[in-house]
Amino acid sequence: MPAPLGLLTFTTDFGLQDAYVAQLHAAVLRTAPGVRIVDISHAVLPGDLEHTLFLTESAWPAFPDGCVHVVVVDPGVGTARPLVAIGTAAAFLVGPDTGVLSSGLPAAMRPKAGVARMPIPDGVEAVEITDTPVRAATVSATFQGRDILAPVAAALASGAPLTALGRPLPTLQAAAPLATPTPHGRGRGHVLHIDRFGNAITTFRGADLSSAFRVRVRGHTINGPVRTYGAAPDRALALTGSSGYVEIAWGGASAAERLGLHRGDAVDVEPR
Amino acid sequence: MPAPLGLLTFTTDFGLQDAYVAQLHAAVLRTAPGVRIVDISHAVLPGDLEHTLFLTESAWPAFPDGCVHVVVVDPGVGTARPLVAIGTAAAFLVGPDTGVLSSGLPAAMRPKAGVARMPIPDGVEAVEITDTPVRAATVSATFQGRDILAPVAAALASGAPLTALGRPLPTLQAAAPLATPTPHGRGRGHVLHIDRFGNAITTFRGADLSSAFRVRVRGHTINGPVRTYGAAPDRALALTGSSGYVEIAWGGASAAERLGLHRGDAVDVEPR
Amino acid sequence: MPAPLGLLTFTTDFGLQDAYVAQLHAAVLRTAPGVRIVDISHAVLPGDLEHTLFLTESAWPAFPDGCVHVVVVDPGVGTARPLVAIGTAAAFLVGPDTGVLSSGLPAAMRPKAGVARMPIPDGVEAVEITDTPVRAATVSATFQGRDILAPVAAALASGAPLTALGRPLPTLQAAAPLATPTPHGRGRGHVLHIDRFGNAITTFRGADLSSAFRVRVRGHTINGPVRTYGAAPDRALALTGSSGYVEIAWGGASAAERLGLHRGDAVDVEPR
Repeated sequence: MPAPLGLLTFTTDFGLQDAYVAQLHAAVLRTAPGVRIVDISHAVLPGDLEHTLFLTESAWPAFPDGCVHVVVVDPGVGTARPLVAIGTAAAFLVGPDTGVLSSGLPAAMRPKAGVARMPIPDGVEAVEITDTPVRAATVSATFQGRDILAPVAAALASGAPLTALGRPLPTLQAAAPLATPTPHGRGRGHVLHIDRFGNAITTFRGADLSSAFRVRVRGHTINGPVRTYGAAPDRALALTGSSGYVEIAWGGASAAERLGLHRGDAVDVEPR
Repeated sequence: MPAPLGLLTFTTDFGLQDAYVAQLHAAVLRTAPGVRIVDISHAVLPGDLEHTLFLTESAWPAFPDGCVHVVVVDPGVGTARPLVAIGTAAAFLVGPDTGVLSSGLPAAMRPKAGVARMPIPDGVEAVEITDTPVRAATVSATFQGRDILAPVAAALASGAPLTALGRPLPTLQAAAPLATPTPHGRGRGHVLHIDRFGNAITTFRGADLSSAFRVRVRGHTINGPVRTYGAAPDRALALTGSSGYVEIAWGGASAAERLGLHRGDAVDVEPR
Repeated sequence: MPAPLGLLTFTTDFGLQDAYVAQLHAAVLRTAPGVRIVDISHAVLPGDLEHTLFLTESAWPAFPDGCVHVVVVDPGVGTARPLVAIGTAAAFLVGPDTGVLSSGLPAAMRPKAGVARMPIPDGVEAVEITDTPVRAATVSATFQGRDILAPVAAALASGAPLTALGRPLPTLQAAAPLATPTPHGRGRGHVLHIDRFGNAITTFRGADLSSAFRVRVRGHTINGPVRTYGAAPDRALALTGSSGYVEIAWGGASAAERLGLHRGDAVDVEPR
């Protein structure tokens, strides 16, 4: 486990119009005033596991080792699920045990498809966060992020040992990687995310495809890859974006608008 | 008065699409480079006193003692109102003297209803911010937040005495608490806020109601309380949320959408 | 060149719904963990040079000398343009060489109209960011902000000499100032920006106009100036806002809504 760096990130579905995010920051600063906080995103679609995985998988690798990454997204609100803290070779992960922390888990701990309970391999430690002195004095039934996750994460970020925060767990919920398998450079995936520029990010990883490929989506056929968004003005483009996924873009405009693309649209890829 | 903590929060109606918030941060850092800033929210509805009170009342109690809380929301733009700095047992409050700082005032200083001028009790100090060396070199007529409030708050956060910032005030504008009184667990309140999840937060405090109650809103009747948002799938719920108010939620969806609720809707509560 | 202050700002067109901004912050913290970051705005309209200039011109002067200001907005995506780092008497500027950094350039370096290549005067230093050890280990073709600009800016903010980051440049792209010239207090400009309150900020600088002037926009005629937004309830107002530009406001409401104003609308001004 890396030495904690005093750096903590939040990924939530809270949005920015309410005061929930400020309460998370407050709970961190109350526990550990010197910890530094970076907001990954608070725009996760409410309770959306895939969206959480996409945003955290994009952002977490950019951080130095030793960060504490907190996810407050709960696809399983109301179901009985523990809150967990995990230490890996690169980072600490804190959140509900629903699979939302999978972007930070070693590949060997993730199922091939869907969400499944997986054993914890060597080099990873996980605890269920139980009664610890680090939580808020009063714990509300509806805001565990503020009352438990944020103080626990702040304690981890400032050096508290993982094992002091709860009891060891033998298994964890884990979600399959987002990337669609493409044997022989061929497969059916979907649009993961439409970004602010209207780029449609697909589930295909550029590194998995043929050096020349064809993408089909909503009746459009696009040849790829090009290297950058500026490769050709005013036409559809396919390229590998900054997180490694194939994106459908449009030179100088929004591909989502020009091609009528939405999150979840089926996308087919094949060599050409 | 608590020792200042070097921590300062902002609550404004500036939004995030303009550069106003950045100018507030800059003015703080120019005055006191080491002060830490947390944004409570910049999504207050323009000039809205009730919305300001709701957001600050939700967020401020989560912060440690000794913070400086700044509000730049001005329901009385254009009316003559001083800018004030207040020290209480828990925090420092800075903003226009319109009642927007009331979430941080002792209960004894708040009127029963509406907004009123109230005397300042023992243990609280308030000054009108007058010509101090801490303001910007040039003060614009339209952005006192940047030119006066932020530098003054930064000075307070880094240890300047309150009394150095202006002349003592004997009274302050204060706004009534948001909570609707409910003698015998009964009363008419309204929807204070719709949050990102579509929960409709009402003016009723859970602690004031009967152990079993009935909420009526827009023709719907909902029995409460349940304990969490996940208490029952796909039906209306009433529960006490993380700020202590009764919320109308919907298991797994947006109550505001399902029930057609809006901010300001009348809500009735009674024992059952 | 001022001593670096360990303070860095970002202005981008990334929005806040994606994880791009978090990746910029991560890249800074990975390079220089002690650097402090302020987000000016991530709401620049995609690739919009004028909007970038307006937001940075409003915000940068509020910061203390010695900041590093980074702009990740690329009106010339796909055209060959270098990435540059500039040192002026007040600040360091980092971004693509498209004119987006002009708000921080000395007046003498800016053309009278449009965008032009300009020689670098005494007291300013500029380098093309070439292969430096400060960039990311792997540089993606589509996210130079994360992989080059952020690490380079972090290095500058923590004291790296400008000249270590690349090779000296003799000229830079620069954009004309936004302010419309008004000989004899007269001219045709346009609406630069509609802010969250519905104020329409024009290209006229208050200091350039007659002490009494008349503004015409979309068939409305408004006499100015008044001093504050609260000068008169429920009518159109013209005043000099906090960034020095003439704004069309409405007492107690949104001028953009009341008068049907949009960004880009022609505006005429004359003495009265």
